Formats: sequence, C-alpha cells, structure tokens
Amino acid sequence: MNPLPRTLEWVGDGGGFLRLLDQTLLPGRVEFRDCRTLDDVWESIRTLRVRGAPAIGVAAAYGVIVGMQASSAADYDSRLRQVTDHLRTSRPTAVNLFWALDEMAKCRSIEELLTVARRIDSDDQAMCRSIGLHGAALVPDGGGVLTHCNAGALATAGSGTALSVLYAAAEQGRRFHVFADETRPLLQGARLTAWELQRSGIPCTLICDNMAGQVMLEGRVQMVVVGADRIAANGDAANKIGTYSVAVLAQAHGVPFYVAAPTSTFDLSLATGDQIPIEQRDPNEITHGFGLATAPDDVSVYNPAFDVTPARLITAIVTDRGIIRPVTSATIQSILVAPDSQK
Amino acid sequence: MNPLPRTLEWVGDGGGFLRLLDQTLLPGRVEFRDCRTLDDVWESIRTLRVRGAPAIGVAAAYGVIVGMQASSAADYDSRLRQVTDHLRTSRPTAVNLFWALDEMAKCRSIEELLTVARRIDSDDQAMCRSIGLHGAALVPDGGGVLTHCNAGALATAGSGTALSVLYAAAEQGRRFHVFADETRPLLQGARLTAWELQRSGIPCTLICDNMAGQVMLEGRVQMVVVGADRIAANGDAANKIGTYSVAVLAQAHGVPFYVAAPTSTFDLSLATGDQIPIEQRDPNEITHGFGLATAPDDVSVYNPAFDVTPARLITAIVTDRGIIRPVTSATIQSILVAPDSQK
Repeated sequence: MNPLPRTLEWVGDGGGFLRLLDQTLLPGRVEFRDCRTLDDVWESIRTLRVRGAPAIGVAAAYGVIVGMQASSAADYDSRLRQVTDHLRTSRPTAVNLFWALDEMAKCRSIEELLTVARRIDSDDQAMCRSIGLHGAALVPDGGGVLTHCNAGALATAGSGTALSVLYAAAEQGRRFHVFADETRPLLQGARLTAWELQRSGIPCTLICDNMAGQVMLEGRVQMVVVGADRIAANGDAANKIGTYSVAVLAQAHGVPFYVAAPTSTFDLSLATGDQIPIEQRDPNEITHGFGLATAPDDVSVYNPAFDVTPARLITAIVTDRGIIRPVTSATIQSILVAPDSQK
Repeated sequence: MNPLPRTLEWVGDGGGFLRLLDQTLLPGRVEFRDCRTLDDVWESIRTLRVRGAPAIGVAAAYGVIVGMQASSAADYDSRLRQVTDHLRTSRPTAVNLFWALDEMAKCRSIEELLTVARRIDSDDQAMCRSIGLHGAALVPDGGGVLTHCNAGALATAGSGTALSVLYAAAEQGRRFHVFADETRPLLQGARLTAWELQRSGIPCTLICDNMAGQVMLEGRVQMVVVGADRIAANGDAANKIGTYSVAVLAQAHGVPFYVAAPTSTFDLSLATGDQIPIEQRDPNEITHGFGLATAPDDVSVYNPAFDVTPARLITAIVTDRGIIRPVTSATIQSILVAPDSQK
C-alpha cells in the first residue's frame, strides 16, 4: 500500500547487492541503481544518489558488505579497515555514516556484517515510525507546516524523520498544508519532498527558499519541522544549508521550530555545534545546477552544504525516544542515557 | 570607459526605436533587442528582457513613442490613451512604470514625447549618480555588503540604485566584498548582479538565497543594500521576493539594512505597504526555470514576484535627494516635499 518505492534495500544474501533509488533522477525518472562494488557505493553517497543522514548510514552499512565480498579470511581484518575507512570519506557531516561504519567494523564475518546491516536497516525503519508517533501531536490540525530540504522516506530506510511526523499526523486524521522550500542548490525540496508528499496524498505547495519569510508573515505557517545531520551535546543541530535562516525567521514570527531526528544523530563528543565539520561542495552546483550556465564564468561562489542552528532557536527535538523540550544539554542527556521506556 | 553595455537607449529621432540589452540572455550572451512595435516593448517588459523599476519606467516612456509613431493628428489623443493604458498592464508592482506613463500622457506631439522620454532617461542617470554619492559613505571600508536581486546598472538607465552606492564607494577608494544572493526563481543576482560587479571589478561572491543568514552569522556582512519597486508613505518597501527575509535576518544579526531608490519610487497615495499590489508570476518559473523539470508535474506553487519589507526593518532609505533616517512618514515627507537642496 506504500505509494513510495523503497529508498534502498539489500537484494539477496551475503553475495547480494545494494539497490538504491537514484534520487538524482527524481522527479523525472524513477530508476534504481544496483551497487555491486565499493566504488559504486562511495560514488552514490558522494553524488547524492542516496542522501539523508539515516539513509546514508544504512547505505554505508550495506556498502561494507559489497566491499568485503571479495575478501578472504586471511585479509578480512585489513580489508574491513580499508573498506570502512574509505566509506568514511564519502560525506563529512552526517554522523550516522560514522556510527553505522563503527558498528560494521566490529563484525567478524560476512554473515555477521549482513546481520548487523539488516539490523541497522530495520532499526532505522522502526526509528522513523517512533519519531512519527512521538511528533504527530505537534502538527496543527487545519494549519500550515513548513519544511526545508528532504527529511522524508527518501532520506531514510523508513518513512522519514521530519516527514514521518507529518505522515503519522495524517494517519491520525489531522489535516494540514505543507510548504516545501525548494532548497537550493540541489532542490531536494522541489525534487524529493514535493514528490513524496504528492505521492502520499498530503497537500503541498512548493516555494522558493526566499519565500519562507513571506508565507510566515502571511500567517500560513504554524509549525516548522526539519531533519538533522548531526546534533551536538548542547542541541545545536547541523542540517541542510538554509535551515538556520528558516529558524531565525520562525522565531521572528513566533512559529515553533522542530527538529526531528533519531538518537543516533546526536554526537555527544561535540560540546557545541561550532565543532561540527561543514562540507563545502562544488561551486558548479550553484552556477551550473540545471545543465545551463546561470552565472558568469569564474564567479566566486560560497557553497556550504549545511549550517548549524543553535539550540536556542529550536523549540523541541523529536526523537525516536521521545520529545526533548526545552533543548538543553541536560534534557538531551536524560533522553539519550535513560532506558528506552517509551519506544 | 564604462565596462557595461547600455541597459537601454533610444536610437534615432522621433522615427527611431528602443534598443534593449536582452537581460534574459545574460550572462551567457550579450545581445540587444530592437523594439519597433508596441507589442515588442510590452513583451520585453513582461518577460523581463528589461527589468528593474527605474529601467522599466524609462523603457515604457520610449515605448510610448514606438506605439505612437503610426498615429495621425486626428487619432493622437485616443491612441495615446490606448498606448499608455496598454503599457500599464505590462507589470503591476513598480510604480516608476505608472509615473513615467503619466508624464508621457501629458505630451501633445511626437516631438514632445521624445523630449520628455529623453528627460526621464537623463534624469534617471542623474538620479543614479546622486543616490550613489549620498550612499557611498555608508559602505564599510574593509567590510562585506550583501545585496539581493539586481538593483544595478542593469535595472536603470544609469549606474543603478543599490549598486550605484557601491560603485560610488569603490570610486572613492573604499574596499569591500559583495555577497550576491542568486535570487530565485529568475536568478537576477547570479545572472545580472554577479555579472555587472565582475565586469566592474568589484569583488563578489555568489550565494544561494538560503545562505544569507549563514554569511551574516559568520560575521561577513556589515551592510545590506537593496533596491525597491514601490515605497508607501510610511516607508514600507516592495522589492524582489526574498527581500523581506533578508531584512529579518539583518535585524537578527545587527546588520544595517538599507533601501536605495529614487524619490519617484515613493507612492504617497498608499499609506502602508499592505496596499501595494503584488504580482504573482507563472509557476513554471519555479518548476521549469532552467528548461528542465525540477519539480513533480502539477505541483502546487506559490510565486509572488515581490514582498514588502516593513519600515521598522529598514535602517535608512538612500534617495537621490538624500538619506531618509529613521524611516517614518514624517522623514519621508520632509525629503519628498522639501526643495531639492542637496542634489
């Protein structure tokens, strides 16, 4: 009954392969990419064929198996280190990538790798459902919700993080309208969020990023919800570039600003968001993003892939273990280290 | 010595034509469009071959001559009314268009039309210089300046409004770095502002609109300066969509936010910005802006061409008659109705 194709899945057993929905081709084409080599997996993560912090983690986990299929018992240990180290270089910001690779690096055999990767995959799906159930009551019945980038089914192995909250609210009968920021430069909002909401029957209006303030001023937005790629111990949250501006605008208009992310997105080794490394991407994404030169040759370009929203601008963080509110080091600690009573 | 081609000019005498730099082809191609019919002029304004509130006014003035060339003495009056009424429908927001057409509608002959249009043209050039000289001292030496859309030479018959301030500051030896918002959906910042600043030797970095908050947070911006399409009696200013969000972000970061516009941009018949009509444009500008479908078919789109920045967010308005600061109905009145002592 799910109107959306699988974002990623493992096909077969230990000798199988990773099948990805190629998100660079959406919304025009629904095509899958079968990754049978480590290079395939690395390139698919780097070029955003698969993207979204949770999905990157799951893809990397399966990617380790792909990279280990040719290894012998004799070279297993050194090869496992090479494979996981290589995949670590595919994207620098999402902590889920490193977390998943750490889990995989502990495995002693292909069978164990497959077991652990499948667990990461199914845990991700359960995490999405749990985030949705915890967050659904935040969605204003009859109101408007603004989101940025894509933190949906396409960003996870399940139903998403930010969008899982909306899917769960819709299942509970709440009616609302979503404003999707198109999210320059790569238009994940236009290409992915609008596509998956439309397929899922949730009313959605696409806007340019620079219209977010205007729709808030017009009173059309009662809630902002976004995902996150890494969250520091104090609640500062890295997410797609532009999220910080949306958070400032939300505060200026009295609109609550929620981050929805699994507990695996927290990186308690970082005291604040200042320590989160921010990926800088190719200027061509801005100057030639549509196969056409839309800026002068040799123009200087600044293209950070992410920004960091300080905890003070975040009304609450919706996690798979419950809602963190207010967002402080203490409330984060209490959710992350407490026994998982609500799941 | 001017490194930029003319944005628009009248070629010939009363039997001549309007030559426009076709801005829809920039930055890839520098081509001119010779408008010899009223339809040519109307279409060029509507499709943004010529854009920017002051340039639209000048183009419309010359456009009246093009539209009147076939008229006889007998039908002069009725034809003049038809021509000016038709041109009024080309764009709804920029008040300069209506102001220029009102001036032209008073003329009694082709000769007078040409005289008045040329005066509007040369006044516009003088206005640009004057705005630049009044505003130059606001530019922080060694600092960063953010601008949105294009309020440059390409938006006027002269050196621009917002960018004239920067050109004048550069001529006076100030050194600064400009951040140009690309300005979705039509990318006037990427295609036009980056192009004209680069040609003029002013250091410029192109950013996506959603990065404006981030560069402010990083302390790279000490001033925002933008143009305006219409300013109400209380100082509320309509400008390209996204300007309002930039103004909110500037206030949140303690960055002064300046509007640079000629006194002809004020519409004292409107008490506040709520009364400024906002043009809604084709959804395809967002979904197919680059000849490529970047959003799902039939997606709902909101595409206002402008937004209104309330006076409370505007640090000062730089006009051809001096600087309005603070921005209130009273300070605006005193600049607009006072004898032009500073010009």
